[in-house]
Amino acid sequence: MEIKVMKNILGENDKIAAENRKMFREKKIVVVNLMGSPGSGKTSLLEKTLSKIAEKINVAVIEGDLFTARDAERIERHKIPVVQINTSGGCHLDAAMVRRAAESINLDETDLLIVENVGNLVCPAEFDVGENFKAVVLSITEGDDKPMKYPLIFKESAITLLNKIDLLPFTNFDVAAAREDLTTLHPNIEIIETSCTKNIGLDAWADWLLKKVEVI
Amino acid sequence: MEIKVMKNILGENDKIAAENRKMFREKKIVVVNLMGSPGSGKTSLLEKTLSKIAEKINVAVIEGDLFTARDAERIERHKIPVVQINTSGGCHLDAAMVRRAAESINLDETDLLIVENVGNLVCPAEFDVGENFKAVVLSITEGDDKPMKYPLIFKESAITLLNKIDLLPFTNFDVAAAREDLTTLHPNIEIIETSCTKNIGLDAWADWLLKKVEVI
Repeated sequence: MEIKVMKNILGENDKIAAENRKMFREKKIVVVNLMGSPGSGKTSLLEKTLSKIAEKINVAVIEGDLFTARDAERIERHKIPVVQINTSGGCHLDAAMVRRAAESINLDETDLLIVENVGNLVCPAEFDVGENFKAVVLSITEGDDKPMKYPLIFKESAITLLNKIDLLPFTNFDVAAAREDLTTLHPNIEIIETSCTKNIGLDAWADWLLKKVEVI
Repeated sequence: MEIKVMKNILGENDKIAAENRKMFREKKIVVVNLMGSPGSGKTSLLEKTLSKIAEKINVAVIEGDLFTARDAERIERHKIPVVQINTSGGCHLDAAMVRRAAESINLDETDLLIVENVGNLVCPAEFDVGENFKAVVLSITEGDDKPMKYPLIFKESAITLLNKIDLLPFTNFDVAAAREDLTTLHPNIEIIETSCTKNIGLDAWADWLLKKVEVI
């Protein structure tokens, strides 16, 4: 019975996600759904790259959190339009939340919309919000077993950012093993190793986002 | 409508959780529901302490993961009875899963049952599985903003383990700020700083578990 209920919710969500996707396409906006565990570094990665990207294209951000507007405040400091969604305990964003948040954004002046999802390796991957691409951040401090333990989010994502790579010497994370598991799950997945504190891979991540906008 | 569905599911779950709790009480078993983000170090903390505890009392473990039996295999190496639940994509354990798993454990020879939940800071806190105590592991690599961003799990937990404390010099985690936020959310919460690699706080964590068994 529980499974049936979940299907109904997802069915309704998929309908709204399709409407979102149509709206974003008409406005020629590329939407990236950025996901990852709590503290994997999603907001820091945005902070480090969006200012650079914003010199070339118009970027807007939707921040998803259960509570607080801390992440939105961090993004706003970089002079980037941002809307905070608080799910009040909900473990993921859904298409209706993103639609409501998008109403507060000037879509005619937006080329790239980044939706930073609730910190969670499970539920966000199950809910289409109308994005063009999903991206997942995996902090290497989380361990190299995570792709096989949480496969859906890595299967769904066009790119994995192996973040906090500067902490590699202090962990037993096996980069080769993680890359192999990621490629097994998703043969075409792109993988970038990143570090916000040591400025590693940030240009590659910014370029990845810019190219997605150029292609559309 | 979505909220109503969630309430129905939780209502049914609470009923089974109450039955579990009655069964565990009759068998004089203390049950700890161990939660935390993916890669916060839940399984490593168990590996480092259970062997010591098992010299004094009978311990059993239920491992919850979406997929794989990797965690159960790690526990089994320490000669501790363990059952793996695979949720096949589900983001938390529920009371019915724990009841089914408990059927495979010799409850007459168990003093302490540790249920390691799915790696997730959100959903596991919402589902009672019939435990006596919830415990949450927060890796300091996740950032000191996590208690206020994911308050429920910290409000519900009797203890927070601030794990990977050995990595403190390489992060900007503010231990004092995290302790203050945790205590604001939950004035009686116990906090132990732990590191599996540097053997910090592991005796305190083992003692906490042992004392819970003595009291009951």
